Amino acid sequence: MVIANKNCQCEEKSIQINMKRLSQFLQKLSRIGKNENGGIDRALGSEAEKQARAFLTSYWENELHLPVKIDPIANMWAILSNNSSLVPIILGSHHDTVPNGGMFDGALGILVATEIVQTIQENGIKLRHPLGILSFTGEEPNPFQVSTLGSKVACGKLSTEDLLAIRHKETGESLADTIAGLGGNVYKASEALLDKSKVAAFIECHVEQGRRLMDRSLSLASVSCITGIYREIFHIHGEANHAGTTVMRDRKDALLAACEINLALEKIAKDIHIDEVVGTIGSIKVLPNAANIIPGSVELTADIRTCDPKKKEEFIQKLGKAVDSIIADRKLRITRKTILDQPPTDMSNYVRNVLDRAITLTDQSQTTLVSMAGHDAANMQLVTDAGMLFVKSIDGKSHCPEEFTQDEDIHLAAQALLQAVLILDKELD
Amino acid sequence: MVIANKNCQCEEKSIQINMKRLSQFLQKLSRIGKNENGGIDRALGSEAEKQARAFLTSYWENELHLPVKIDPIANMWAILSNNSSLVPIILGSHHDTVPNGGMFDGALGILVATEIVQTIQENGIKLRHPLGILSFTGEEPNPFQVSTLGSKVACGKLSTEDLLAIRHKETGESLADTIAGLGGNVYKASEALLDKSKVAAFIECHVEQGRRLMDRSLSLASVSCITGIYREIFHIHGEANHAGTTVMRDRKDALLAACEINLALEKIAKDIHIDEVVGTIGSIKVLPNAANIIPGSVELTADIRTCDPKKKEEFIQKLGKAVDSIIADRKLRITRKTILDQPPTDMSNYVRNVLDRAITLTDQSQTTLVSMAGHDAANMQLVTDAGMLFVKSIDGKSHCPEEFTQDEDIHLAAQALLQAVLILDKELD
Repeated sequence: MVIANKNCQCEEKSIQINMKRLSQFLQKLSRIGKNENGGIDRALGSEAEKQARAFLTSYWENELHLPVKIDPIANMWAILSNNSSLVPIILGSHHDTVPNGGMFDGALGILVATEIVQTIQENGIKLRHPLGILSFTGEEPNPFQVSTLGSKVACGKLSTEDLLAIRHKETGESLADTIAGLGGNVYKASEALLDKSKVAAFIECHVEQGRRLMDRSLSLASVSCITGIYREIFHIHGEANHAGTTVMRDRKDALLAACEINLALEKIAKDIHIDEVVGTIGSIKVLPNAANIIPGSVELTADIRTCDPKKKEEFIQKLGKAVDSIIADRKLRITRKTILDQPPTDMSNYVRNVLDRAITLTDQSQTTLVSMAGHDAANMQLVTDAGMLFVKSIDGKSHCPEEFTQDEDIHLAAQALLQAVLILDKELD
Repeated sequence: MVIANKNCQCEEKSIQINMKRLSQFLQKLSRIGKNENGGIDRALGSEAEKQARAFLTSYWENELHLPVKIDPIANMWAILSNNSSLVPIILGSHHDTVPNGGMFDGALGILVATEIVQTIQENGIKLRHPLGILSFTGEEPNPFQVSTLGSKVACGKLSTEDLLAIRHKETGESLADTIAGLGGNVYKASEALLDKSKVAAFIECHVEQGRRLMDRSLSLASVSCITGIYREIFHIHGEANHAGTTVMRDRKDALLAACEINLALEKIAKDIHIDEVVGTIGSIKVLPNAANIIPGSVELTADIRTCDPKKKEEFIQKLGKAVDSIIADRKLRITRKTILDQPPTDMSNYVRNVLDRAITLTDQSQTTLVSMAGHDAANMQLVTDAGMLFVKSIDGKSHCPEEFTQDEDIHLAAQALLQAVLILDKELD
């Protein structure tokens, strides 16, 4: 077993990742699934997602000389082993994207992890722990209507039985077939389960996706908590009718009711707490959606986020009152269905502290943020000590082609994450 | 030449159309294009629309023994000729439907016309004028984004050059190819032009599609004016961004702006005149339309209708002010494009008077309504004396599977239209 030399910190601090290589690697991966708008389409199971898997596999096998393992939910693993009996430290994120998404969300974490492993190899650093790269399956919302899929299975939130019930909402294809096509096998989902005996610690490096770091002129942050996410589908049952011959007072226009719900949602979010609560209606389906027909049916999805469970309850209660009043005024029917009620998750205090020290070691000011986006790290916290490192997003843009993070900030993030790995490697058993 | 006997009105008044046959005929046609919701999908150029054409052609050729002519824009004609040198009286409407439409809109006018011709044949009535049935091509809004297509060509609003520029908005197929597939030829569009030397008068029998007749317990009405229709596309350019990580104050949510426009439109319509002005946003397209992304782009179509050009101007002015205020508040960009500005059209006073007399002859109370829907009759008024006969719609429902008109009202409409034909035949040269 290789024992770390506790006196070599100065030397290790001077190790530099190869930013040019990392930048080129990001550019190459960004071409996979690029659409005509400059955005990236790499939804779970898509051809582009498969190409991204082939690209990563080829790099890990040919450049890092690491064997690539696909677990039963098709999470991709590449582990730098040694002869240690210790369990691995894992760096991970995801390679899928939202429709028309950006090139950093998910991809950054995988490629920074890859660069760190390569740097450690090139510098001949002997770690006490194995060090792994993990790219999760289906982190983003997708047509199978389950996000953070790979980590949900890894932490036991979804079993084989649950997975067998999931189908593509448009094509009807079973998730089981899709996962099989990626090299997984949902019948063996239990073999993908993780715990402390398999993962010593987990860190996800990710773009912030907001503008808090930019507003404070900072590059990096550790994450204290990952937001709770509450999602509800509203189905408004109005009456489709002729847009000319139906006088205004006889209408039951489902879209007008949907508009009132959306504006109420915005007001409630702003009233409760302008910074720590958000509410969004991002998805709406109108039937029949023709210029000369009054909308008869509207389905919309409301997404509400906060790290404070009391604020969530307050939000839902106020929204309920607003909807009741809309029903009474417009004399139509609205049905509601909660499709997600994910509680907030505190990150490991220990990993957060390690990240804070690593950020300081790279001569950066240290700060801590809550994450208003869901991440695989929230599920990983249920099975091991997990943490997140946020990197500045320019103008806070994300989930869009304009998503951007500067090379200088990526460089700092990779250096800090490398230091965090070295600290964990020394301190963990 | 057959000269009408001016003394035979009593005898002709007793002629009865065959309501059972007409009712069965309506049922049969309603099966063509019926979908799983019970609605009818017979969009221009669809397989179901072609089947409806084959169904009508077969009936006119085999039951009425009339030759069927397809003009260059694929309008369908069947004319009961005689040796007269007079030009024909035409009864017409259309056989296409909106998506998930009803079984009476359009179809009723064609089948009542067919029944009248068959009744005249069976009763051996010798008319002075030829009597024609005309089913127009593409009356409803359709993916080629042109409604009342057949009558627009017939009255010279669209030339070959215009037609050649039109494509299916989704498939990109040219309208020219679609029309060729229906037996027409857009290169000869000028040969489809009509005028007084080709059509002596035109009447369209149609369901009211509103609830004014029902509210007054009446079955039939003549039509004084066909509404102007103004349509505008609003394109709201916001900013797509992450629904969790973007705080409320940093958002440029295009859907929230669209919601405010829709509610403003409703308020303006109600404020100007609750009965004679309507405004609707029936069609909306949201991008990227995902639950966890703030809508970055929304396109919506506003439809504004009134028979009073001053009220239309007032509406547009107020809407403009509302939109300017939304732009200022939400700091996003909105572009506007007028896609239709069709003035109101007064129907022929003479034909309206004939219809009023015919309604009285069937022992009905007479009333007159404006039409808040566009109809081919508005275009036909530009080339001949045109009128419309409205038939009671139950609960005013239309453009939906629940569209319904009772047999007893259809019977009265067919009897009245038959009387109107006999009056026109006597009085017109």
